[in-house]
Amino acid sequence: MPAIVHTAAKQTVDIGPFTLECGDTLPQVEIAVETAGTLNAAKDNVILVCHALTGDAHAVGDEEQPGWWDGLIGPGRFVDTSRYFVVTMNTLGGCHGSTGPASISPDTGKPYGGDFPLVTIRDMVRAQRRCLDRLGLGELHTVIGGSMGGMMVLEWAVMYPGHVKKVVPIATAAALTSVAVGYNEAARHAIQSDPGFQGGHYYPGPGPVNGLAVARMIGMITYRTEALFEKKFSRRLQEGTNSDIPSLDSLFQVGSYLRYQGEKLVHRFDANSYLRLLKAMDTHDLARGRGSLEAALSRVKAEVLTVGIREDLLFPYRQQEELHRELVAAGKSSRLIGIHSDYGHDAFLVEYSDWGPQLQQFLEE
Amino acid sequence: MPAIVHTAAKQTVDIGPFTLECGDTLPQVEIAVETAGTLNAAKDNVILVCHALTGDAHAVGDEEQPGWWDGLIGPGRFVDTSRYFVVTMNTLGGCHGSTGPASISPDTGKPYGGDFPLVTIRDMVRAQRRCLDRLGLGELHTVIGGSMGGMMVLEWAVMYPGHVKKVVPIATAAALTSVAVGYNEAARHAIQSDPGFQGGHYYPGPGPVNGLAVARMIGMITYRTEALFEKKFSRRLQEGTNSDIPSLDSLFQVGSYLRYQGEKLVHRFDANSYLRLLKAMDTHDLARGRGSLEAALSRVKAEVLTVGIREDLLFPYRQQEELHRELVAAGKSSRLIGIHSDYGHDAFLVEYSDWGPQLQQFLEE
Repeated sequence: MPAIVHTAAKQTVDIGPFTLECGDTLPQVEIAVETAGTLNAAKDNVILVCHALTGDAHAVGDEEQPGWWDGLIGPGRFVDTSRYFVVTMNTLGGCHGSTGPASISPDTGKPYGGDFPLVTIRDMVRAQRRCLDRLGLGELHTVIGGSMGGMMVLEWAVMYPGHVKKVVPIATAAALTSVAVGYNEAARHAIQSDPGFQGGHYYPGPGPVNGLAVARMIGMITYRTEALFEKKFSRRLQEGTNSDIPSLDSLFQVGSYLRYQGEKLVHRFDANSYLRLLKAMDTHDLARGRGSLEAALSRVKAEVLTVGIREDLLFPYRQQEELHRELVAAGKSSRLIGIHSDYGHDAFLVEYSDWGPQLQQFLEE
Repeated sequence: MPAIVHTAAKQTVDIGPFTLECGDTLPQVEIAVETAGTLNAAKDNVILVCHALTGDAHAVGDEEQPGWWDGLIGPGRFVDTSRYFVVTMNTLGGCHGSTGPASISPDTGKPYGGDFPLVTIRDMVRAQRRCLDRLGLGELHTVIGGSMGGMMVLEWAVMYPGHVKKVVPIATAAALTSVAVGYNEAARHAIQSDPGFQGGHYYPGPGPVNGLAVARMIGMITYRTEALFEKKFSRRLQEGTNSDIPSLDSLFQVGSYLRYQGEKLVHRFDANSYLRLLKAMDTHDLARGRGSLEAALSRVKAEVLTVGIREDLLFPYRQQEELHRELVAAGKSSRLIGIHSDYGHDAFLVEYSDWGPQLQQFLEE
């Protein structure tokens, strides 16, 4: 067997005009795609990865630029790119190569900005399906993703039951809780009320950088757990802060960390995309237009491995339990793994030892 | 026995120049005070109430304008104003009658604004002590308060052990968790980055109304629980929102509720005070300058009844358990009540049936 070369291929795929659920048609849609591994002759080793809110197509990457799921996917890893051909796309509506609010509208010659319509989770999945068609890829071995990506995974199983053999929804749900929608509403208000937002028509300006930073700060707390924050920061102050006499300038390490995370996101993410992806998650409901969750899940043909994190504050574990229960009730092949992690919701991006081996086995069965 | 008249008396007490922990002296400090009930001849029936972040001196109120703790305190209630003389002060640094950032500085003839210094929890308590002196009130029967008010209650027991017979700290802690500080940091960034903030020098303008609203929205989620949000809102949409086709304008009831709460606070609370009270809570630590929590609590002479809410996300129940454990270890008279409530942290402002009777008994023993 030849040495496995850990390479990633990047391309942009034109999928033509695309009509969204809201009725609007985007006249020209491009999808940024990255692949890792090699497509086999039977074309039956394709694994599609769906990213979360601030993710992108760079899931696997290479030695020089490891991707965001590099610890899970790669040569010899739990998702082994020496066996599988792993495809990741930046979502429609995103800001890392796929058509989104910062793209130029062919109609006006200017960025869509605030005029870019809502892209639903189902729109995102239909765009993925069309992109795969253009790439000559039919049936998928597995679709895998966490959080918003997990919502897409579940839609794959319901929208294209004949196209996918296995699905792995992680730290996700059929629909957000009201608390998650509430946090998103606070984030939205922070972004939209920032004078830099200008109704979304801020290009080429920096946009609502403060609002987006606040949104990210809120997010970063809800993605983790109190246990992790206590271990990582406790009540330690930043160096140079006087701990004997409190002052208005007293800065805690946790505050400094959150501000840093806020500023970091601003440099790599577009606020208009952020707003649309939040709203796509808020309004998503696997049962919408299908009568009930039970009816929606009755369409599933794929084997399902659901992974949940028991400490997840944003997608509580009971939501993954409910999915599993409903799938079993509908007579589907369903397994559930509930892991423990102080990372909370973010665990699926950080800790693989408790579920990676079971994922590997599930893929290979 | 004559009919009990449910009356509240309001006054503003001049406590003169006041030097803060930070070293700054406020040349003239006034404290807004409300009382309910009647001071007895022995002056031994005084109960001091300490308010939380956005509270004020209007704890008891009357039939026309019930106070924020009207359900707990009043004639024949758990804290019976036919027996006790209940005193509540707006905190120093606040914005409801006591000297705070919106007050006129005698030095400049203008509002302090961004120049108003940090008032610590200990400063607040010293100001209360001086205000009580001016009112001719010495020993306190009981000091009671929740959240930030609970921090003040604990300081009362440690700073003035000879002045207070009983204390009732509720839903509070010796110091905030890193997660709570983190949420406050996000709130702070929202307020301070709002262009309306102008470094705190926004009077007579409206100030950072959007930032303060975002801060309140974040707060309202953390003060409650997911269970309550699911019961109250679930995923219901506002009337007039199309549930069949999601859009950027889709508005959930939870979002509408939070925006309403945000807007409501903006009309009744000053952002500069909000910032200072947040920082007072962040930097508060009962152990600061006292060697250890154990050493701090060794000063306590009062009997302590701690009330905690097991679902509290902001002041986790383990913090009240720790307080109780340390008090018991130090040989103090300490009792702990742990209640359950879907209201989470806010339960102390809403639900009294599970702890009111025990509070009443504790007061009367």
